[in-house]
Amino acid sequence: MSENLPELDQAAKKTALRMFTYALYVVTTTDGEERGAFTANWLGQASFDPPLVMVSVEADSHSLPIIRASGRFAVCVLESGQRELAGHFGKKHRHAGDKLADIPHHPSASGLPIIDDALSYVVCQVTGELPAGDSVVVVGEVIEAAALREGTPLTMAEAGFRHAG
Amino acid sequence: MSENLPELDQAAKKTALRMFTYALYVVTTTDGEERGAFTANWLGQASFDPPLVMVSVEADSHSLPIIRASGRFAVCVLESGQRELAGHFGKKHRHAGDKLADIPHHPSASGLPIIDDALSYVVCQVTGELPAGDSVVVVGEVIEAAALREGTPLTMAEAGFRHAG
Repeated sequence: MSENLPELDQAAKKTALRMFTYALYVVTTTDGEERGAFTANWLGQASFDPPLVMVSVEADSHSLPIIRASGRFAVCVLESGQRELAGHFGKKHRHAGDKLADIPHHPSASGLPIIDDALSYVVCQVTGELPAGDSVVVVGEVIEAAALREGTPLTMAEAGFRHAG
Repeated sequence: MSENLPELDQAAKKTALRMFTYALYVVTTTDGEERGAFTANWLGQASFDPPLVMVSVEADSHSLPIIRASGRFAVCVLESGQRELAGHFGKKHRHAGDKLADIPHHPSASGLPIIDDALSYVVCQVTGELPAGDSVVVVGEVIEAAALREGTPLTMAEAGFRHAG
């Protein structure tokens, strides 16, 4: 394999990565005192047995230290039509403060904040993390799960968001 | 937070995880001698700067040792309608042998096999990996990218595949 690679085509990189398909989720966390919540699209399952989920979390985010302190995070699946909710949780904590304050939510069995209007959620116990550029890939084992109701998930394509590239 | 959690509801876990949204990709790798290719849905971007991609690779897969040896993998984005192609690359290597043999493909600048009919691709240089149950989360930096043509990506929902839960 040649190692004299041409420089990465930045426009092609952006276009190619924007062809990846995502939905929109709200990831929450709490250590019992502090809590955090943010809109995420870079996440997915990582293992069947045990059931693991991987999520890319911004390294400078408000939530990452809380995820690390508590070892827990929840993933709430948003529904088609909930673009505004996704936008709300996409704001930075330093501008928006406690983003859960205005949004109906309830605690899971282990106390994680769950968005009432989510389609479903899983609560994960962190099993490991990997540095990933401006982010950290956090992997956690599913320890709680609930399907709250049926419905179609909110996709990035529907929302028209561009958090990729 | 209570630590006397009820046992995980296996049906709810499956339903909740199947509400996660995925597309279908073919991940390829080669070390110059051996090559591997498999259908993947558990992948996504992991960082903007540098541009990183994360992918869950089955720990006992034929491709994982080749990814490790070469430090490289490519992600080809499949198009709507290419369900059969996704099914082909979803077969196990021990049953199907060299899955690239029958499928038109060409080498990227760095020699990774690219499916001719893909919408776009990125080639990644591995930056790290994290054990994840029956799989390994591999993270790599985008070193090549091309948008081959416009089109709608093939989703799991369209294909009717159930690789989640």
